[in-house]
Formats: sequence, C-alpha cells, structure tokens
Amino acid sequence: MTITSVDQYRAKPDDQIKLIEWDPNDKSAFPAGKSQGKKALKPLTARLEALQEVMWAEQKHKLLVVVQGMDTAGKDGTIRHVFTGVNPQGVRVASFKVPTPIELGHDYLWRVHQKTPGLGEIVIFNRSHYEDVLVVRVHDLVPEERWSKRYEHINAFEKLLADEGTTILKFFLHIDLDEQKGRLQARLDDPSKHWKFNVGDLKERALWQDYMAAYEDVLNKTSTDHAPWFIVPANRKWLRNLIISTVIVETLEGLAMNFPEPQDDLDEVVIN
Amino acid sequence: MTITSVDQYRAKPDDQIKLIEWDPNDKSAFPAGKSQGKKALKPLTARLEALQEVMWAEQKHKLLVVVQGMDTAGKDGTIRHVFTGVNPQGVRVASFKVPTPIELGHDYLWRVHQKTPGLGEIVIFNRSHYEDVLVVRVHDLVPEERWSKRYEHINAFEKLLADEGTTILKFFLHIDLDEQKGRLQARLDDPSKHWKFNVGDLKERALWQDYMAAYEDVLNKTSTDHAPWFIVPANRKWLRNLIISTVIVETLEGLAMNFPEPQDDLDEVVIN
Repeated sequence: MTITSVDQYRAKPDDQIKLIEWDPNDKSAFPAGKSQGKKALKPLTARLEALQEVMWAEQKHKLLVVVQGMDTAGKDGTIRHVFTGVNPQGVRVASFKVPTPIELGHDYLWRVHQKTPGLGEIVIFNRSHYEDVLVVRVHDLVPEERWSKRYEHINAFEKLLADEGTTILKFFLHIDLDEQKGRLQARLDDPSKHWKFNVGDLKERALWQDYMAAYEDVLNKTSTDHAPWFIVPANRKWLRNLIISTVIVETLEGLAMNFPEPQDDLDEVVIN
Repeated sequence: MTITSVDQYRAKPDDQIKLIEWDPNDKSAFPAGKSQGKKALKPLTARLEALQEVMWAEQKHKLLVVVQGMDTAGKDGTIRHVFTGVNPQGVRVASFKVPTPIELGHDYLWRVHQKTPGLGEIVIFNRSHYEDVLVVRVHDLVPEERWSKRYEHINAFEKLLADEGTTILKFFLHIDLDEQKGRLQARLDDPSKHWKFNVGDLKERALWQDYMAAYEDVLNKTSTDHAPWFIVPANRKWLRNLIISTVIVETLEGLAMNFPEPQDDLDEVVIN
C-alpha cells in the first residue's frame, strides 16, 4: 500500500497560504492508518538507502533537506526515522543553534552556506536560515527594516545553490497547539525525557500566533519551483515520516542517477 | 597636493562601458606627476591606518575590497602599497587560486562567502568570485548556460553582504597590452623576478581580447550602488595606488566611525 500524491502538500509559488486552512491531522493521503503506514515506510527507507548509495558513488548531485517546525513538531524524530539506515558517509545533519558572536559578526547566511552539500552529499538542516525570519522576527532581534529584506536574499541564495546543481526540499512540520501541549506534557511526565524540556519553550508557545504569521510569510514568499516548501501534517508522526520519505525518494528517483562507469575495461582484468 | 575627484573612475550602473574608451595612461586626476604622487600617498596611508584602528575598535562595520586585473596589472603591488602600515589584526587578504576538488564540488560562491569580513574587519580579495565569469568563461570551464546566470547570483550575493552591513569596493586594474609586455619582459630580464614568471601567462596574454570582453560584461552587469566597480588607470603604479587609496579612505571617512565609549565611568577609576 502506498501513499497518494504528495504534491498536495507542496506550497505552490502563487498560493496564498493560510495555515489555519491546513489540517495538521489530515490523513487523506493514507487513510489506511497507522500500522499500515508504518509498514509502508519500510520499503521507502530501503529505497532511500539505495538511492543515497548511487548518489554518493556518482558524485553528480547534491541534496539539501530543510526541516523546520515549532518545538516538539518532530524535527529530530523525522531525521531519525526518515534517514535511518543511510550511510553516514555522504549524509550530514547541520543543526543551527543560537549563533556565536563570530557568526553574528557576519551576514546570517555565512554559517549556513558553509554547511551546504558538496557533490554526492545529502545534508539535512535541522533548523536553518529560516530562523532568521522566524525567531529573529518574533523576538525583534533585528529591526523589521533588516529582516524584511531577507526573503529576497534567501530566494537568491537558494537560486544560486539550485543553478549550481543542488536539489532543495523544505519541510514545515505542521502541528497545532493541542498537539504541542500533549507532547510537552509527555516530556514532563517522563523523567527520561526531562532533558528535552526547557522552560523557555513555554514562552515560545505563548507566541504561537506570531510564529504562525511568520511561517505564513515564509511559505508565501519563499516556496519556489527550485526550492519548494511542503506543509506536512505532523500531528501523526507515522504520516509525517511517510510523506517526507515519499517526497525525498520521488525526488531522488527523478534525478535518474546511475553508478559511474568503471574507469578501465574490467573484462580484461585478471586477479592473480 | 591631493587628487581630484575619484568618482570619475566609478562605473555607474547605467554606463555602457567600453574599455577601449578608458585610457590606462590617464593621469588627469593628478597631473603633477610621479614624485608628487608618491608624496601624496603618504598621508593617505597614515589616514587609512588610523581609520582601520577605529574600525577594529568600534566593531560596527565591515569592508570588502575586491582587486581584479590581468596578469602583471599590479594586484599584489596594490595590496602591498595601499595597505602598508595597517594592523594585520583586523585586516586579511584572501587569495583565490585554482579551486580544489572540494571547492569545485560546491557552488562557486561557497569558498568566497567563507572569507568575507566579520565586524570590524577589512578583507581584501586578491582575485575573487569574478574569476568565475572571467577565466571560467574565457576557457569554457563551464557552459555559457551556467556562467551566464552568475552575474545575477553575484549581484544578489553582494546585496546580501551590503544589506547585512558590509561596505564593498571593487577595483579593476586597467593596463594595456603594451604595458603588460614591458612588465613580463622585466620579469624575464631580472632573475630575482623569475619566480613570478609563468609560461602559462603567455597563453592568457594571447586571449587578451576575450578577457577584455569578459571584463566589460562584469563592469556593465555588476557595478551597483551597493558594490561599485572602479576602473583604475593602472599603467602608472603610483597613480593606481593613489586612486585606490583615495577611494578607500574617502569611503571609510563616510562611515563616520568613532572609538566606542568606555564601559565604565573612568573618572572614578583610581589605579593604586
């Protein structure tokens, strides 16, 4: 059993996205439910593993996967489940935390550009340059006059990457306030998850509507043909994983990759 | 004695530059000649040294100086003479040679972005990302379909730097074929300069007209208000230095920099 078209989750460049109209519980793409859904993920992760192997061998393509979402939206879980099994040689995760003074002394794309994939590589951004128009905007870390110019910088930056051979996929993990409440409570209730709980997260939670407004601007201004955003209904973890895995596998299949030809005529090789 | 307006050497965004119309021997900006010209440089280098000290102390501005030109145009000499005396703490030269395989595996701005100035810094690019539309174009290192998109990337990249607080000045050291011949011959005639002589330079010399066409496109497509090109008549080394030094000093003066206020009230400090 496979998922129906995932293109319904892509933010089209001309859309006027209102997140309230996107249901984080939507499971229309895979009505069969959780246990079937988990089963459906397995062949996809195997396929991803195989595709990544060809990609690394071929050294012809680069893939950048951006993962964004509110606290508890499942960024870490997505990375763990979708990329389970791939060879770490050729796959890197870059996490963007609070910038250092040296990073703040440069433009906000400086540290990000350094982490972009080289030939044959898959790089996953756990948070990204989008924080510079999300948390930075919501908390007024720089004036609007400055952050408002960044959508254009970001589109140009991603155009550069795309023109020079990088395939870009961006995923917004869409959960709602209720789902976050449950997940935060679960962290509180389970001592083994206390390390994940940060009282500061509650302050961010109180700014939910501001974040949604900032995300809507991101989705409306920076979902391009060369670097599309997918709005992933993420209240259900299994469905979130299934959708993202499908998008990535379908995209890599579209690259029509092949193992490189051997450099010598192997028919004549004799190993003594 | 000071130089007349250096703005005449700036390529205006709407100009249609033809290099044949720009005289590499022009000395109208400083008719008094070489010995007066060398004298005029001294107060400028002292002023630059002082300005750089404030800049480093203030940690508020960043300056990027791009130096481009044909072989023997005087890139190294410019850097040596114009920046003589500045504190190396806060001033860096980044030279861009033939890219490594890792660098080639990323977009062409990847290695360049890493070297851009942080707060308080002056960075001089000895060659730059412009080589990716110069040597790369003249030698067909990538297809036209690819390099032709780069002017737009470069403008967007420099806009990002400027919007995020970097002042950008770009200098094209304009010499002519005769001048290059003399300088190459001087290298051949002087054993202590043989290390600078590379037989490959003669191949590049034979492509002079192709390079001039590529430079004209650079000057016409990428001289913007936020990152202007200056076409420096460079047959005369002393005048080249004088013009560049003047542009840099006038630009830094325009930033109205100040030493930062002390963090404490020093009137009350007693040193026992």
